[in-house]
Amino acid sequence: MTRERLYLFDTTLRDGQQTQGVQFSTPEKIQIAQALDALGIDHIEGGWPGANPTDSAFFDEAPKTRATMTAFGMTKRNGISAENDNVLAAVMNANTPAVCLVGKTHDFHVETALGITLAENIENITRSFAHVTAQGREAIFDAEHFFDGYKSNPAYALEAIKAAYAAGARWIALCDTNGGTLPADVGRIVEDVIAAGIPGDHLGIHTHNDTENAVACSLAAVDAGARQIQGTLNGLGERCGNANLTALIPILLLKEPYASRFDTGVDRDALLSLTRVSRMLDEILNRVPQKQAAFVGSSAFAHKAGLHASAILKDPTTYEHVDPATVGNARIIPMSNQAGQSNLRRRLAEAGLDVAAKDPALVRILERIKDREAQGYSYDTAQASFELLARDELMQMPDFFEVKRYRVTVERRKNKRDQMVSLSEAVVVVKVDGEKKLSVSESMDATGCDRGPVNALAKALAKDLGIYTEIINDMHLVDFKVRITQGGTEAVTRVIIDSEDGQGRRWSTVGVSANIIDASFEALLDAIRWKLIRDVKK
Amino acid sequence: MTRERLYLFDTTLRDGQQTQGVQFSTPEKIQIAQALDALGIDHIEGGWPGANPTDSAFFDEAPKTRATMTAFGMTKRNGISAENDNVLAAVMNANTPAVCLVGKTHDFHVETALGITLAENIENITRSFAHVTAQGREAIFDAEHFFDGYKSNPAYALEAIKAAYAAGARWIALCDTNGGTLPADVGRIVEDVIAAGIPGDHLGIHTHNDTENAVACSLAAVDAGARQIQGTLNGLGERCGNANLTALIPILLLKEPYASRFDTGVDRDALLSLTRVSRMLDEILNRVPQKQAAFVGSSAFAHKAGLHASAILKDPTTYEHVDPATVGNARIIPMSNQAGQSNLRRRLAEAGLDVAAKDPALVRILERIKDREAQGYSYDTAQASFELLARDELMQMPDFFEVKRYRVTVERRKNKRDQMVSLSEAVVVVKVDGEKKLSVSESMDATGCDRGPVNALAKALAKDLGIYTEIINDMHLVDFKVRITQGGTEAVTRVIIDSEDGQGRRWSTVGVSANIIDASFEALLDAIRWKLIRDVKK
Repeated sequence: MTRERLYLFDTTLRDGQQTQGVQFSTPEKIQIAQALDALGIDHIEGGWPGANPTDSAFFDEAPKTRATMTAFGMTKRNGISAENDNVLAAVMNANTPAVCLVGKTHDFHVETALGITLAENIENITRSFAHVTAQGREAIFDAEHFFDGYKSNPAYALEAIKAAYAAGARWIALCDTNGGTLPADVGRIVEDVIAAGIPGDHLGIHTHNDTENAVACSLAAVDAGARQIQGTLNGLGERCGNANLTALIPILLLKEPYASRFDTGVDRDALLSLTRVSRMLDEILNRVPQKQAAFVGSSAFAHKAGLHASAILKDPTTYEHVDPATVGNARIIPMSNQAGQSNLRRRLAEAGLDVAAKDPALVRILERIKDREAQGYSYDTAQASFELLARDELMQMPDFFEVKRYRVTVERRKNKRDQMVSLSEAVVVVKVDGEKKLSVSESMDATGCDRGPVNALAKALAKDLGIYTEIINDMHLVDFKVRITQGGTEAVTRVIIDSEDGQGRRWSTVGVSANIIDASFEALLDAIRWKLIRDVKK
Repeated sequence: MTRERLYLFDTTLRDGQQTQGVQFSTPEKIQIAQALDALGIDHIEGGWPGANPTDSAFFDEAPKTRATMTAFGMTKRNGISAENDNVLAAVMNANTPAVCLVGKTHDFHVETALGITLAENIENITRSFAHVTAQGREAIFDAEHFFDGYKSNPAYALEAIKAAYAAGARWIALCDTNGGTLPADVGRIVEDVIAAGIPGDHLGIHTHNDTENAVACSLAAVDAGARQIQGTLNGLGERCGNANLTALIPILLLKEPYASRFDTGVDRDALLSLTRVSRMLDEILNRVPQKQAAFVGSSAFAHKAGLHASAILKDPTTYEHVDPATVGNARIIPMSNQAGQSNLRRRLAEAGLDVAAKDPALVRILERIKDREAQGYSYDTAQASFELLARDELMQMPDFFEVKRYRVTVERRKNKRDQMVSLSEAVVVVKVDGEKKLSVSESMDATGCDRGPVNALAKALAKDLGIYTEIINDMHLVDFKVRITQGGTEAVTRVIIDSEDGQGRRWSTVGVSANIIDASFEALLDAIRWKLIRDVKK
């Protein structure tokens, strides 16, 4: 069988931004676009130029991508020419190689939502796509409510998409905008559309997860002949989200009949980064990654049932439909049983700690991790804090210095120019080498902006650690994440700090407390100790 | 068309307990069983008697249910009679009306995992089900790995399930144990099984969500003729979870062709409780409910896009495939920089602010929201802060009091018992009614635990607001969310505070700053002002 090309269209930056509570900044949009491009996505829909400042700014600063950068907008409004529609003009002025315009195909929406005649709507579609293609752009028709429209008035729904196709649209994306169409109907209707004369390799599918069938509906459309899938990373999107590319991509690359039938822009090498890309997006959104997410979730290959765990040890294919490594994920076998302990030993070895299989410290470390996680700690990402905890149990944790006390003050008052300004000041008292050191710092940065109390504490702590001051000189904080979590019954703050040093090392530490300053300070201390373990000459 | 009966089999208490990090107590299992029974589930699989203490205890104390209580176990082991298998005996001794036994149907597993001959496995299945039915129990065969087994050796997979059926099993549950089978294959194979002589009304489907297709696979099996669906509440379960009954139930009751074709034990009245039942389970598990969950998620009917929001106002069916009320959920139209003017006016009206359609203030408010969101603010959830911003633009914001300055100190040092303890102290200076008020508070709570600087600030602020002190007396903070976000180029902290008062009101406010204390303080001030607007007698 000759292999066919299947195209992937990502709308994380447009429809994904419709997720409640999600608001990307321009730098975040750029970072995500670069990740999508590295993955091998064909189209990146960057947003709606003119609709809001961040979207406009993104297209101004948009990174060079191999993927086709696409601007989103809507077909021209009634009663104005495409040339004179300023909303459409703003979209065209983003100068992207591709332009995707949403338009109506459902008679009910034309009359109820737009309040224009069915004929006027067809005319608006035709003129809009003639305009886009005349300017040499690749045109994509986002056929809103197509499936509901087809159910209510098939002739009109087909007339609408044929108008766009005739006017030069390269892709007709059939949208199940409200997410209510089930897979069997999607398949049947896509077959009808192809029978009505629009070739499958010009048809895209855009689904939503309102019945938890967005992935299945996308596959049903491909089975029926559609050749473009629109979706988002981690299934972000309006209401219940869009079709989840993080699930669809591995299905298309690893599962039959798709794996042997289709080529996509994503190859097996890029697939190895899928889990990392998914977690990166969660980091940007400061969301707890969904443990049970298909393929990329931390539980996706976790085998808890006793029968499963023991069979997995004989042969992983007994309970895994794909190898976790192919998507950059890892198998988890609960720490509780024998296999769990070998997991722990592997993780310790990664930190350079070799522990014998029967060492009783293993059980103590597992117990301590369980207790700490019950208090709200999390060691999945905070590998450096995990190492310090283990070293402590293994009596391999040097006490470099002791913090005797600290005090941090945040003051907000009027300045001479009668503006409210704030300033933080931190005093830290440490004992190093039997010597007591007092250090004080404030939170003002070079630009005269107050960076807050944690910044002041970090500076005071680093200011004088005696013989260690030099060593931690090249170390700096690259990220700081705060989450309110449950510690037993009380809500506590979990702070995770990412640090980096001059040798390009990067490590994460965690602190937990009802007091956010204490939690941050604990994570800071771990970060410094981890660095000292590596760089202090023995 | 005559309506057919479709049966729902819940395994939240058995397979659901295989979810990583989930461990139900016996009282929790009883509470969940009662909720499932009230919902109208046909079978409740309570666990594996003898496998662990909680499962055994559950069956001892199992509540009286209209649903058929089911005990789970495995077919008898090789070389022992069913009568003498103590594992099977423990299952039978739970004295449930129904018994579900897992057994092998995949030749590879018989030989690799069990290490017995194919013939021995058939014999074990036959003897086990003869034993269960001889004792007058309803027998269910959990045909493990059936779909993979059928692909590798159809004749043997069929022989195995036919053996159970011939021995009297009422239901043959076809399991896609590793979750790797896609919907099209599930449909095709179920058709083959029926063609091979096992009637559809004796076939169940048990799927997992490893490709995000568990719901679609269940529907494909029903389309092919299967008449029992096995799943869990909120899609709990091993790895990526089981088929999500919380999504399947509304599909079967509300969506075609299922709604007019099938009856289930769940009726439209019970469906009204679905969202509540889903949230109850999350509470038991102390999990944050998934906002984007189909039907029951808090975002499932949240319309963020401006085009959507304005159409929804004209007619909800424009962007909703079902009425949120049918599943006990509610519609949300959040403020966001995608919001159109009609959305804005609706939100203002909800806050008691009637603004004419052409009022220029609308544009100013939208502009200000866009600017603030570019700085890192988010008004999706912080409706109260949105109202204050709008009132300010509309000149309807009374200035109740002015904060002149504040100072908060966090100190950590050794106490008399030589333990490191921390304490925060806040001083706030406000001007109320021309009078200057100094208040000081510390962060110690009733239990002697330090709740941190934000707590101290909140207490100091509430301590003396002159004439307003009484009014804010019944107000307290119920949630506090922090995230680091991008304000322009610099990283800033966004704090969202949920407050509640004695009249049962609940409102959310937002603050943003590079300094987490400032951000929190800003959100606190908004919370108090929103309350004063409502309760101060004009």
